Amino acid sequence: MFISGIGRTKFGALSESLPELLYETMYNTLKDSYLNISDIGAIFVSNFLGGPLNGQLHLNSLVSSFLPDINIPIIRIETACASSGSAINQAIHSLQKYENIMILGAEKMTSDNIMGPIESLAMASDRYTDQMNGLIFPASYALIAQQYMQKYGINHEVLELVSLINHQHANLNPLAHFYNKQITLVKISNSPMVASPLNLFDCSPLSDGGAGVILSRNNEDDRDVKILSSQLASDSISITHRKDLTSFKATKIAAEKAYKESKTVPLEIDIFEVHDCFTISELIALEDLGLCHPGEASALIYNGQISRDGKQPVNTDGGLKANGHPIGATGLAQIFELVTQIRGEAGERQINEVTKGLAQNIGGIGGTASITILGKV
Amino acid sequence: MFISGIGRTKFGALSESLPELLYETMYNTLKDSYLNISDIGAIFVSNFLGGPLNGQLHLNSLVSSFLPDINIPIIRIETACASSGSAINQAIHSLQKYENIMILGAEKMTSDNIMGPIESLAMASDRYTDQMNGLIFPASYALIAQQYMQKYGINHEVLELVSLINHQHANLNPLAHFYNKQITLVKISNSPMVASPLNLFDCSPLSDGGAGVILSRNNEDDRDVKILSSQLASDSISITHRKDLTSFKATKIAAEKAYKESKTVPLEIDIFEVHDCFTISELIALEDLGLCHPGEASALIYNGQISRDGKQPVNTDGGLKANGHPIGATGLAQIFELVTQIRGEAGERQINEVTKGLAQNIGGIGGTASITILGKV
Repeated sequence: MFISGIGRTKFGALSESLPELLYETMYNTLKDSYLNISDIGAIFVSNFLGGPLNGQLHLNSLVSSFLPDINIPIIRIETACASSGSAINQAIHSLQKYENIMILGAEKMTSDNIMGPIESLAMASDRYTDQMNGLIFPASYALIAQQYMQKYGINHEVLELVSLINHQHANLNPLAHFYNKQITLVKISNSPMVASPLNLFDCSPLSDGGAGVILSRNNEDDRDVKILSSQLASDSISITHRKDLTSFKATKIAAEKAYKESKTVPLEIDIFEVHDCFTISELIALEDLGLCHPGEASALIYNGQISRDGKQPVNTDGGLKANGHPIGATGLAQIFELVTQIRGEAGERQINEVTKGLAQNIGGIGGTASITILGKV
Repeated sequence: MFISGIGRTKFGALSESLPELLYETMYNTLKDSYLNISDIGAIFVSNFLGGPLNGQLHLNSLVSSFLPDINIPIIRIETACASSGSAINQAIHSLQKYENIMILGAEKMTSDNIMGPIESLAMASDRYTDQMNGLIFPASYALIAQQYMQKYGINHEVLELVSLINHQHANLNPLAHFYNKQITLVKISNSPMVASPLNLFDCSPLSDGGAGVILSRNNEDDRDVKILSSQLASDSISITHRKDLTSFKATKIAAEKAYKESKTVPLEIDIFEVHDCFTISELIALEDLGLCHPGEASALIYNGQISRDGKQPVNTDGGLKANGHPIGATGLAQIFELVTQIRGEAGERQINEVTKGLAQNIGGIGGTASITILGKV
């Protein structure tokens, strides 16, 4: 199984509508590939909030409108912020039936809203236990950060460094939401409190944007990248069901399966894309993915291991924090970055000798986790 | 590929919440099967309006909450009113990876609403061309009915008979939304106008309910039913993109592929479940599925061919009109009925000698169409 095409839009507060983002993503993804639309057997659409935010569901049929008389199977998948990862996982299972499958992810969050984004985003959490008690996501992740910081005796400074590194990476990515922004530790440290201990720079932004990939059964182009594994795991939706908030079980289960299937160990992975919806989730991801033991992620930040000149760069596109987080596109943008780096097409932000990359895409409080491992052909 | 378990709830205006409907569906589906939850490799959740209506997305993770420490892959699929059919189609592709897959569909429409059902249902249509111009679904299907009636010279009487037959069927189905209701042609004919020529009894109701199935790679039980084909096709979302409203291209394409794959012709199918969201769509379905030529569906109504004592009974559970239309569960309830009939477990509503059955599940104005053909092992 191979990735034979990638495409994305700029991320940010954009003028485009949701249909326009999907169209632009489709166009860019096909243009990158050696394939034509007539080679595509099926399409998967990844989107989280088209209904509540944009009043637009049935996006599979919307995409069909772009392709008159094509009439191929098109399906929309939603698993909150892990919609991309779930779509990739599902599409892979369908490669036995279709030789090539296109996956399009998009989200329109900054305008065209018929409901508020905060209320809509909360729909990824349990309505009766969490939403109704005010546990919107910044609040839930604040509880996680409190528990993590107390358990391992760290302070907010390490989270500020996570934010800084992601912003530095985004400054090399012209398509990132926060490209060309000069962000300093002082600015980060002094930013307004959102939910203690998380301040504004601990939180990924609302972004508009789209990203897409084409999966192919066979390797027919020298720019193709190999899919070594794709794994999915689930966990309870409510934070009230979790005994330990400092680790996400679904990430660990999916990662263990993915390492096993791809016959790799964490140290063999050259670059990681992790789901840093909040800075604290980047620390948890590093531990759940086995880059270090529980409680030791801070060391990887301080010793530079995950910076772009470190041994295992993380979020070289800027991550959710600074590349942006247009939810339905987020996991696909991670794949876009891994493929770009493995192909050696990352330009100014290219990392040397990237052979293997891993993407972690989660939904809610880790209620869904998708792990994808890619490798050079 | 086989169906090794089916389950559903009562359809109607129920007191249960969306999570409760999903739980009850899961319980009933597992209970019907010879399998245990530990035999299930993955779960698909079919739901349309959990976000806009119930403020609850990420339903895959919600279902994971019912199953502590199971952590299997769970995915939610949404393709408007065809969500069930798309989930079945996708799950089949995943049977190479998982031996058994459970599909759970549910919708909570009559209460617990954070947005209005009319506004929410309209999200299956194009926001910019249709929704914003008032083309909610009764209006769109009224245009379809006008065009059909003019083209083929029929009057409203035949639609009234479609409604009556579905209500008669529902009176033999204790789980139907309109079980035990004495509906007469006079009552149907005199019901309030909704969108001319469609009156109240031309429209399927808002229903709460759930339905589920288990798919298995292997045949290991004498109650198993064989999946002969599952096909999916797409079409443009907006009614403004259609040249002819009297036939749904996606149904025709998916049906043609399904007949071919299953090596059957329409006359060999013993019972049909068709997507009668409005009475007019039942007429169109009969034609698109090849039971008769275009414009001849009325004859099948008048000559009794599709009644329960006819040659090819249609919607023996009462159809969307009278069994009910809890959207995410609708296509799975169709499969529930076919499997029940093929097994010979339909009790009072059992049809003699059912060997093959076909279900047609569509989304929007036929923007998505799923065809499933089942057969006796």
